[in-house]
Amino acid sequence: MRLKSTAYTAHHRPRFVAELRDFIRFPTVSAQPKHAGDIDRCARWLAAHLRGIGLQRVNIVPTARHPIVYADWLRAPGRPTVLIYGHYDVQPAEPFEAWRTPPFEPAVIGDDLYGRGACDDKGQMFAHVKAIETCLKTQGRLPVNVKCLFEGEEEIGSPNLKPFVERNRLNLAADVAVMSDTRMLAADQPALTYGLRGGLSFELEVSGQKSDLHSGNFGGAVHNPLQALCEIIAKLHDAGRRIAVPGFYDRVRRWGAAEREFMASNGPSDEQILRDAKTGRGWGERGYSLYERATIRPSLSVTGITGGYQGTGVKAVIPARATAKLNFRLVPDQDPVEIERLFRQHIARITPPAARTTIRSFLAARPALIDRHHPAMRAAARAYELGFGAAPVFLRSGGTIPIVNHFQELLGAPTVLMGFALPDDRIHAPNEKFHLPNFYRGIGACMEFLAQIGSGRYGQ
Amino acid sequence: MRLKSTAYTAHHRPRFVAELRDFIRFPTVSAQPKHAGDIDRCARWLAAHLRGIGLQRVNIVPTARHPIVYADWLRAPGRPTVLIYGHYDVQPAEPFEAWRTPPFEPAVIGDDLYGRGACDDKGQMFAHVKAIETCLKTQGRLPVNVKCLFEGEEEIGSPNLKPFVERNRLNLAADVAVMSDTRMLAADQPALTYGLRGGLSFELEVSGQKSDLHSGNFGGAVHNPLQALCEIIAKLHDAGRRIAVPGFYDRVRRWGAAEREFMASNGPSDEQILRDAKTGRGWGERGYSLYERATIRPSLSVTGITGGYQGTGVKAVIPARATAKLNFRLVPDQDPVEIERLFRQHIARITPPAARTTIRSFLAARPALIDRHHPAMRAAARAYELGFGAAPVFLRSGGTIPIVNHFQELLGAPTVLMGFALPDDRIHAPNEKFHLPNFYRGIGACMEFLAQIGSGRYGQ
Repeated sequence: MRLKSTAYTAHHRPRFVAELRDFIRFPTVSAQPKHAGDIDRCARWLAAHLRGIGLQRVNIVPTARHPIVYADWLRAPGRPTVLIYGHYDVQPAEPFEAWRTPPFEPAVIGDDLYGRGACDDKGQMFAHVKAIETCLKTQGRLPVNVKCLFEGEEEIGSPNLKPFVERNRLNLAADVAVMSDTRMLAADQPALTYGLRGGLSFELEVSGQKSDLHSGNFGGAVHNPLQALCEIIAKLHDAGRRIAVPGFYDRVRRWGAAEREFMASNGPSDEQILRDAKTGRGWGERGYSLYERATIRPSLSVTGITGGYQGTGVKAVIPARATAKLNFRLVPDQDPVEIERLFRQHIARITPPAARTTIRSFLAARPALIDRHHPAMRAAARAYELGFGAAPVFLRSGGTIPIVNHFQELLGAPTVLMGFALPDDRIHAPNEKFHLPNFYRGIGACMEFLAQIGSGRYGQ
Repeated sequence: MRLKSTAYTAHHRPRFVAELRDFIRFPTVSAQPKHAGDIDRCARWLAAHLRGIGLQRVNIVPTARHPIVYADWLRAPGRPTVLIYGHYDVQPAEPFEAWRTPPFEPAVIGDDLYGRGACDDKGQMFAHVKAIETCLKTQGRLPVNVKCLFEGEEEIGSPNLKPFVERNRLNLAADVAVMSDTRMLAADQPALTYGLRGGLSFELEVSGQKSDLHSGNFGGAVHNPLQALCEIIAKLHDAGRRIAVPGFYDRVRRWGAAEREFMASNGPSDEQILRDAKTGRGWGERGYSLYERATIRPSLSVTGITGGYQGTGVKAVIPARATAKLNFRLVPDQDPVEIERLFRQHIARITPPAARTTIRSFLAARPALIDRHHPAMRAAARAYELGFGAAPVFLRSGGTIPIVNHFQELLGAPTVLMGFALPDDRIHAPNEKFHLPNFYRGIGACMEFLAQIGSGRYGQ
């Protein structure tokens, strides 16, 4: 059985890669309204593909923004049900000029496939799709019942997925959820993620006078919104590099020595993180390793600033307004609603008298924890051993996957985060790539995961 | 004589405005290399125009960047020589979306002509051109010798004009220089500018890690260059809103009570400046009026910041670098070379350990002062009385015109700053305009200025 499927995937690799390239060619940037049509086209392509490999019911579910693609195969009565989640939307590709190959013209260079979404998450979710295809084509059946839930809004915080899951609680019922949208520690070192940070994003606009002014005629006599914005941002961290919003740390969970020792011996070292970040020097809160700062401690990143003249050379202008994009990462037991309230109060408090600030909220997601000792985690560990030839380490991630919490809360199903991304795959950055050997081994691991869950060896 | 010329200008107004619109249509943005061809075409158009109105020698002088257009009329032996300066380059028009009419498609709405450069400086310099035309067409001669020097690099700090003037010291010899590139106090209140601030611009880049990083995976563990940039900018002013560069104020001249009283009774009030700036609230150094802060006190404006994601929605990124454009305005007796040294030392001192800063210098110009009691200023005052029906006030400007100092140093000629711009003409900003009645009256004042200088009543 295993031999047959291995031969099938080996034989069809070139076609699998060609299909993945077709998938990546759709510029499914969920944050940018101009790409709404591309997202619809991609959803239709994906649905047709899922029908083609033999899944039963395949639906494109419209939402207030970007559609959900649902597909299932439920012909294993008495066997467990696995909910496979993935997302076919991608991060914006900007800055385009930093890409060595165009982001939506996927290119294979050596062992890597380059393109926006190659890794996050089209490539990784496609490993599950190809695993299902391989099982169905070589065995005529799957070892478990499968429900696929592929959304087009993950990169904008999944605003319509939670209501969808809420409404379809019964239809989506599953024993375990699995997704591949996280990192391995290294090419030969798979990892199961058991912690995710929450997220909370804002756009902060500072406005001063009604229109742009000449910096010669008015410089020194009016408050410059760009300067005010910088002064506000400089007040968001204190001298100890902690976030300076009063009350911000009140609910941050303190972990005991056992957990911190587990993290130290299983997680990346400071050196490894600095190597991954391609920088010589770390930063952040005293008393914590870089791994801890990026996982069990919250953070606040300025992700973009726009204001004034941005062209070549100089322009003598005091701009009328300036904006910053800010991204909080939250940890247990912080509550995004409470943090937003504290943040808004703090901004109101530190806004200089001659400036006005307005705040727009974007995605808000709670942090998530998955029990390392859950049977489904053991099944995933075994799947990695068989697919990658190595037992996984248990890692926390600093990233955010909003749906993990929703699955837990609404379906009562734990989510296995069985990622195939490498630390240098540059997800969210220019020249994102997917390491193709991980695609091939990932297909194997996905098949093994279904087989392990189907074997009944991992009772819930 | 005066009647004849008044009739001529009245009759030809529609043509004058049509010609000015042709002049504005050239997008002569000197800061942007893509417009080099437009600047060349505009220089050729201008030279042909100057030949057409009867000036003698007309030359297009190539420089390392944008050409100078020179023209003269030297048939008044024994009479004084007036050097008329203007610039045909313009500020960038960005942000384009803020314009109600396209910046390079000049539009007349009511009494105003809208377009980039309509006021600064194409419209104002064109008043001199039309004054010369009127004199030559109605009287067959000019009351003085005239040398016109029109450059294409004022908005980038006149890098090639000073060497040109240096090389052509004898050819450019003049008794007085005049230019119209400054503001009146109001439509019925002309002004002679007797003080200008110097200028000094920089681009400051902060870089951190080698490439963009995911703000989930690395947020809290690496120093964000955008945050570092904000922290640096926040340290450029102290709590008293003074520029926090050590030594910066050492050479700032302190003015006595007499000059400050003269300024208070002749210059705009705080209320007037706030009205012009369309803001309800001033800002800046304690102990000085807004007029003083913008003229006899130095300033530092952040004129642009670029970094991270600037599109719609959010992107979870820690950018690899961030840049700010900074513009100092200097006052007597500050030296741009010394200030640059102090600024670079200060930035090196406040750059956080995990960040690197690089600084690129742009324009540098010394501040300038013109003696209010100089005979040429009296001639200009009389010209305003005859042209605008009102005696001018004597004002300081917070702006910078690098060439004023060069004329003084290299030619020994004082420069009369006889401006026709209104406070709400939005120079350097979207929807720049020129008040056409000021164009017409300006032509009259320019003619009267030449007549007054030619009358010999204002001995040097």
